[in-house]
Amino acid sequence: MTAVERKSLERAWGFDDVAIVPGAVTTNPDLVEPTFKLGDHSFRVPILASAMDAVVDPSFAAALTKAGGLAVLNLEGVQTRYEDTEGIYEEIAAANLDHSTEIIQHVYSQPIRDDLVGRRIEEIIELGGVAAVSATPQNTKRLAPVAKEAGASFFAVQSTVTTARHVSRSLRGLRLDELVEQIDPVPVLVGNTVDTGAALELMETGIHAILVGVGPGAACTSREVLGIGIPQVSATLDTAYARDLYHERTGRYVPIITDGGIRTGGDLSKSICAGADAVMIGSPFAATKEAPGRGYHWGMATPHAELPRGVRVHVGQPRTLDTLLYGPTSRTDGTENLVGALRTSMATCGAQSIAEFHAARMVIAPSIKTEGKIYQLAQQMPG
Amino acid sequence: MTAVERKSLERAWGFDDVAIVPGAVTTNPDLVEPTFKLGDHSFRVPILASAMDAVVDPSFAAALTKAGGLAVLNLEGVQTRYEDTEGIYEEIAAANLDHSTEIIQHVYSQPIRDDLVGRRIEEIIELGGVAAVSATPQNTKRLAPVAKEAGASFFAVQSTVTTARHVSRSLRGLRLDELVEQIDPVPVLVGNTVDTGAALELMETGIHAILVGVGPGAACTSREVLGIGIPQVSATLDTAYARDLYHERTGRYVPIITDGGIRTGGDLSKSICAGADAVMIGSPFAATKEAPGRGYHWGMATPHAELPRGVRVHVGQPRTLDTLLYGPTSRTDGTENLVGALRTSMATCGAQSIAEFHAARMVIAPSIKTEGKIYQLAQQMPG
Amino acid sequence: MTAVERKSLERAWGFDDVAIVPGAVTTNPDLVEPTFKLGDHSFRVPILASAMDAVVDPSFAAALTKAGGLAVLNLEGVQTRYEDTEGIYEEIAAANLDHSTEIIQHVYSQPIRDDLVGRRIEEIIELGGVAAVSATPQNTKRLAPVAKEAGASFFAVQSTVTTARHVSRSLRGLRLDELVEQIDPVPVLVGNTVDTGAALELMETGIHAILVGVGPGAACTSREVLGIGIPQVSATLDTAYARDLYHERTGRYVPIITDGGIRTGGDLSKSICAGADAVMIGSPFAATKEAPGRGYHWGMATPHAELPRGVRVHVGQPRTLDTLLYGPTSRTDGTENLVGALRTSMATCGAQSIAEFHAARMVIAPSIKTEGKIYQLAQQMPG
Amino acid sequence: MTAVERKSLERAWGFDDVAIVPGAVTTNPDLVEPTFKLGDHSFRVPILASAMDAVVDPSFAAALTKAGGLAVLNLEGVQTRYEDTEGIYEEIAAANLDHSTEIIQHVYSQPIRDDLVGRRIEEIIELGGVAAVSATPQNTKRLAPVAKEAGASFFAVQSTVTTARHVSRSLRGLRLDELVEQIDPVPVLVGNTVDTGAALELMETGIHAILVGVGPGAACTSREVLGIGIPQVSATLDTAYARDLYHERTGRYVPIITDGGIRTGGDLSKSICAGADAVMIGSPFAATKEAPGRGYHWGMATPHAELPRGVRVHVGQPRTLDTLLYGPTSRTDGTENLVGALRTSMATCGAQSIAEFHAARMVIAPSIKTEGKIYQLAQQMPG
Repeated sequence: MTAVERKSLERAWGFDDVAIVPGAVTTNPDLVEPTFKLGDHSFRVPILASAMDAVVDPSFAAALTKAGGLAVLNLEGVQTRYEDTEGIYEEIAAANLDHSTEIIQHVYSQPIRDDLVGRRIEEIIELGGVAAVSATPQNTKRLAPVAKEAGASFFAVQSTVTTARHVSRSLRGLRLDELVEQIDPVPVLVGNTVDTGAALELMETGIHAILVGVGPGAACTSREVLGIGIPQVSATLDTAYARDLYHERTGRYVPIITDGGIRTGGDLSKSICAGADAVMIGSPFAATKEAPGRGYHWGMATPHAELPRGVRVHVGQPRTLDTLLYGPTSRTDGTENLVGALRTSMATCGAQSIAEFHAARMVIAPSIKTEGKIYQLAQQMPG
Repeated sequence: MTAVERKSLERAWGFDDVAIVPGAVTTNPDLVEPTFKLGDHSFRVPILASAMDAVVDPSFAAALTKAGGLAVLNLEGVQTRYEDTEGIYEEIAAANLDHSTEIIQHVYSQPIRDDLVGRRIEEIIELGGVAAVSATPQNTKRLAPVAKEAGASFFAVQSTVTTARHVSRSLRGLRLDELVEQIDPVPVLVGNTVDTGAALELMETGIHAILVGVGPGAACTSREVLGIGIPQVSATLDTAYARDLYHERTGRYVPIITDGGIRTGGDLSKSICAGADAVMIGSPFAATKEAPGRGYHWGMATPHAELPRGVRVHVGQPRTLDTLLYGPTSRTDGTENLVGALRTSMATCGAQSIAEFHAARMVIAPSIKTEGKIYQLAQQMPG
Repeated sequence: MTAVERKSLERAWGFDDVAIVPGAVTTNPDLVEPTFKLGDHSFRVPILASAMDAVVDPSFAAALTKAGGLAVLNLEGVQTRYEDTEGIYEEIAAANLDHSTEIIQHVYSQPIRDDLVGRRIEEIIELGGVAAVSATPQNTKRLAPVAKEAGASFFAVQSTVTTARHVSRSLRGLRLDELVEQIDPVPVLVGNTVDTGAALELMETGIHAILVGVGPGAACTSREVLGIGIPQVSATLDTAYARDLYHERTGRYVPIITDGGIRTGGDLSKSICAGADAVMIGSPFAATKEAPGRGYHWGMATPHAELPRGVRVHVGQPRTLDTLLYGPTSRTDGTENLVGALRTSMATCGAQSIAEFHAARMVIAPSIKTEGKIYQLAQQMPG
Repeated sequence: MTAVERKSLERAWGFDDVAIVPGAVTTNPDLVEPTFKLGDHSFRVPILASAMDAVVDPSFAAALTKAGGLAVLNLEGVQTRYEDTEGIYEEIAAANLDHSTEIIQHVYSQPIRDDLVGRRIEEIIELGGVAAVSATPQNTKRLAPVAKEAGASFFAVQSTVTTARHVSRSLRGLRLDELVEQIDPVPVLVGNTVDTGAALELMETGIHAILVGVGPGAACTSREVLGIGIPQVSATLDTAYARDLYHERTGRYVPIITDGGIRTGGDLSKSICAGADAVMIGSPFAATKEAPGRGYHWGMATPHAELPRGVRVHVGQPRTLDTLLYGPTSRTDGTENLVGALRTSMATCGAQSIAEFHAARMVIAPSIKTEGKIYQLAQQMPG
């Protein structure tokens, strides 16, 4: 008997591939409570803002706290490299598209200052915000204690892919179980991951939430450059499955946060229906008047000195944070009143809580979207 | 043993994904009788006009009765909010595209008048039409008795999704079994739904027909805004299956009416072949000279004050109702002579009745259509 | 136990969905003999020309005989309605696109003349051609004896869909077994069909070949108008399966001719590899200098008075019949040297005869083509 | 019991259909060693340059040796037909697109000179390169001894499809087992093939590596002309399976080299992850400043006198060989720093060697790419 097998591939699905299907019960949108719990905090809406420089600065973080969500500040971006960030944002916004990647690479070549790490967290708190911050695994040992000291409520360890086991030439890499203990009681979010097994291993380290998604964001080109990526609906299904297995076995519930590629109320609703407890959103927030990016958006992998994986995208600033989340709106493309859309979607499926929405039916239905894309394309054509 | 399972998704199919396959018998088109029975009425053609303001006013309803079909009047639109509707239709047609949603939102902020509900039904009857009317579940208790009193022959309870069980803060929601009793013998149509289980529960309440389809219409963007929607062929297969199960168990036959997204004779034929007893059509009727919309069309969810889900679409008025249904035509894209197309399609499969056509073979064959779309797109390009 | 079942759909595939896969043996193209036998005739190449007016007139039929293939003359087109056809072809070619369907409808409203049926067959024979002719089932009883009398070598009964059992108001429809006997020894070709069961029933009547395919041709819009159609690869697989079952049971081999949608050497090779014994081609022949259509092409269903299903397509006349079939060519898009392409394709799979090529491997591989389409589309864009 | 069966088709997948999925372990890119062994040679990077005239001349071969890869010189192209090749490259580059195929057909009508075969190999060696050369099966008997005599380190037998069993009119075709013996110890590479069985038969002849892929390259139109082709991921999965079966049975490891269609770091990573030991790349190398093609690229089947299958493609010369392979880069589309991308991709999956990367997970995820294509297309549109 031989152990040799042809490598097999399963199918994976993204937002545009699926649709939510109403069932035999409906409810009123005003009975819906899409609350999200993380550690001891409870958030009115299950929406986090991405740890990206064009999305979150201290004042944006405070504004999103007031609006019911949670913003994560990038501790390795312009906020902690520059005392005065205004000129930096101006420079990036003013850059010619062809040179924008080079300019971003240059801006991020300045060192991170520990004093600025502390100061930004204090600014968020002074403005009335909940301070959540993010660092890469490489810088976590150095920055996590500084963040805890400064009063951060949440700490995220985040890179394209973060795992519980990282093989490194250095004697000791980051150990997540030690980090959890070290900054206790600050909850630790870790990501990104997309795999059932990897999510289970992360949960075993004691961390408090998992960020899900590799490669689907608007500012990310990991799939073209590295070949790596998995559509968000499948990534969410796989990691939510890990959460449920782990919860049943241990009794501890580790929330799943779908991160990347969410642009509309439909994408948001599909993420939650597929099993997410919350979502992390980048470009829609970058396109609010409260965002620091001046109408531009770029990814965390864009500044990579030798192999950038992301581009600067123009998103404009056509609306306020409040309109984005709560409307009212006259737009019919799903890009405004995201929370109203989620409530209506949940109510249509008879779900009053996120846990109930996890049980709603979803189907693979690619054709409608393809038609839509082609149609939109045709619309954009001149003449 | 664990009950935890990875959420699974089945595939769903739309009109463009499928094709009807001729078999071993053919017949003559003049032997085909595509009759549709609803309550005690029998209609020559299995086609209803959507309860949309750009499609049905009293004179259109009478015209469609003469043509062999059935029009449904929206009791919550401009007809029952305004005594003189001419100026309203003018205003909507004249609006700039960018502001059309806002203007429609404003127009529909006027209250519904009970006296106008009665008057419109009387107008249909005076013009020789069969009066079928529609209200949302919220207004059904109030409007259904008024409609019965005024002589309506059919009453439709219709919203994006309507279920037999609706959870509400108010003490008592609408109970469909009570409605059926209250307005007996007026047959009650209910929709929309897409699910086998939900359709079975609706049938149990005693209602007389089910409208099938969520999200696929030309004037609807539920899928982008809410993430909700299911392609029409699968919705029809699933609910027709419910009808057949219920029919076998109880002996009562509750017709299935596929509603939304039907633009051509091909779409119509596929709906019936997939199991529908009739179809409900919007935009093709809006594009007839008899329609009140002046060449524009908009959805029932467009006026939503905080989360509109639909746009005003320009459809023109290039043909008469008779040409749309019966031809003759020189067009080769399937948009005229819908009934001729259905007869030919049925005859090609050897089906003389709708019940026989339900047995014809259908396959999934997406590629041809994709090519067509791409081709059409190329055609639309300048140069 | 219930007999009620949800209607199920299988998938079907077209040319653009599949690819031929070379295996473990190759051979030299000059060892390949793609001979096609029909009745007592043997043709050097397995290619028939469609019974369409823009493709076949008597002189084209003679030219294709010389080139090794077989042309089928439409007995219900301009050739048998008009003594002098020159002016008719001119009129159709000169028509404005918007009115071309109407003009074609008008041209075909003239009656068919029996004397011209005979005369056209005689003209083919005088020019040295093999005379194959085609009529619809409605006119077969009248035209078949005339054709036999005039010396036709093959008679095709052809309409969109032709079956062995046709239900009609008239006392007796066409019986194919009687036709076979009546015009014996003239072989009878029948089509079109796409279904295993329907093909088996046709074979039982004693007919000599089956034309396969409904709806895929360049001049056909059956799928949009009627919803009817099946991609050619699946239609070929299904009917070839019927041929093999029937052959094994009875010892009689009834060739399968894939008809419609073939534009390139790749399409031709895929048809044969999927199980066809020969193909019938329309638009590529219409685009030769020998064709009567003056660079235009239209379908047999285009003239339908009330429900035309096809359009006049401009194809040009960029090449000779010989270049189309045998090259040499500098074109790299597969539209010239069709026979050279088939030989090379067969040789690459190690197949020296059509029967051997039926055993070659084929896979479903849609992606390449989609890319190609998108690419071609991009190419066609200005700028 | 009947042996007759409906022919069945499996699905096949290309680069754009799949994505690599990170798992539970990551590593540092600097721990990754993507070494490729072929015969007694070991190459730092698993990348070969295609035996195409626009890609490899003696100086390019030497440059790629220095860069850590291996270039293959085409022994049947301009290098061995012309003493002075400068003018030839100029002529092809200067040709009008419409006539470029004809001009290439003409250029390749000159005879191959044995003296030039020897001289080109000597030039590569003098410049410090490893000399690998390629001939078609037809010319192998004549050219292989000349190449060995001149000092070639590797000999490739390559045509669109090459098999162990070739049926020919001539008394004796090329026998690969005899070739291996004749030019021993020069390792023999053979291709192309795509099939598990065909790959196994080739391995049995004693050859040392297999080139995989039919039809997917940028300069190839085999799929349109012949209908032949198989997407590269499936071809790699199938032949890698053959390699593993053969290795387990015999203990001899015959590397698989995926050849054709690779344009980005993502494509390269997917090829290796799917099971390839190395890749062969054409157009990206043709687009380097070191390549002889002056910014143009054409395929080996383009010069075919009667049935050309390929076009001259403009690729430009925007970068150096070093930038292509190792960066650094500001581009974010995956077209530069291919080796950096492979290292990062492998590290993200925790793979330190190519053998470990073969075990990484891969999924079918077509939607992202389709969106990308549509998006790119929209971007390319004017206005």
